[in-house]
Amino acid sequence: MSEANIANKDTVLVGKVLEPTMNKRFDFNSYPETRKFLDELAELSKREDYYPNINFGKTYANVSIDGEGLAVLNERNSSFIVEMHALVSTTVAK
Amino acid sequence: MSEANIANKDTVLVGKVLEPTMNKRFDFNSYPETRKFLDELAELSKREDYYPNINFGKTYANVSIDGEGLAVLNERNSSFIVEMHALVSTTVAK
Repeated sequence: MSEANIANKDTVLVGKVLEPTMNKRFDFNSYPETRKFLDELAELSKREDYYPNINFGKTYANVSIDGEGLAVLNERNSSFIVEMHALVSTTVAK
Repeated sequence: MSEANIANKDTVLVGKVLEPTMNKRFDFNSYPETRKFLDELAELSKREDYYPNINFGKTYANVSIDGEGLAVLNERNSSFIVEMHALVSTTVAK
């Protein structure tokens, strides 16, 4: 999954050039898997003190990081996004 | 909080008269409170075998139950919505 196909193109703040909002959808095999991912993402949020908007149902979670959030993560040189993707491999059964 | 002011008016399925989608926003004082609410809502979902779409950030959670979901809960005479509201009183510090 290349980084390019993650970001999509709806820029958020008028008059301030920001990274586009990043929407990333994760699909799971079961509700327990979804819960495990969300619990680990919560720990990551606390570690990085960054709380993206998360939309989830029984077997999916959609994480949205707006332009401002991306700018903050960039400034902090945060590994939030990379670690978020890594969570999937430890959560989803192959 | 009367039931009336919970539902709002964007009907979901064309050609099939359904209850409007119910969107209910809960605000919290801290991330731990948000987490506690989400964990208890997860237990309720498992008990009732019903998994609404949930959108959350650091100190809010928005629960959406579409027309189809409301119809299912109605058919099952489920107490999901009432119990969901009751969770707030056990979660949010006064």
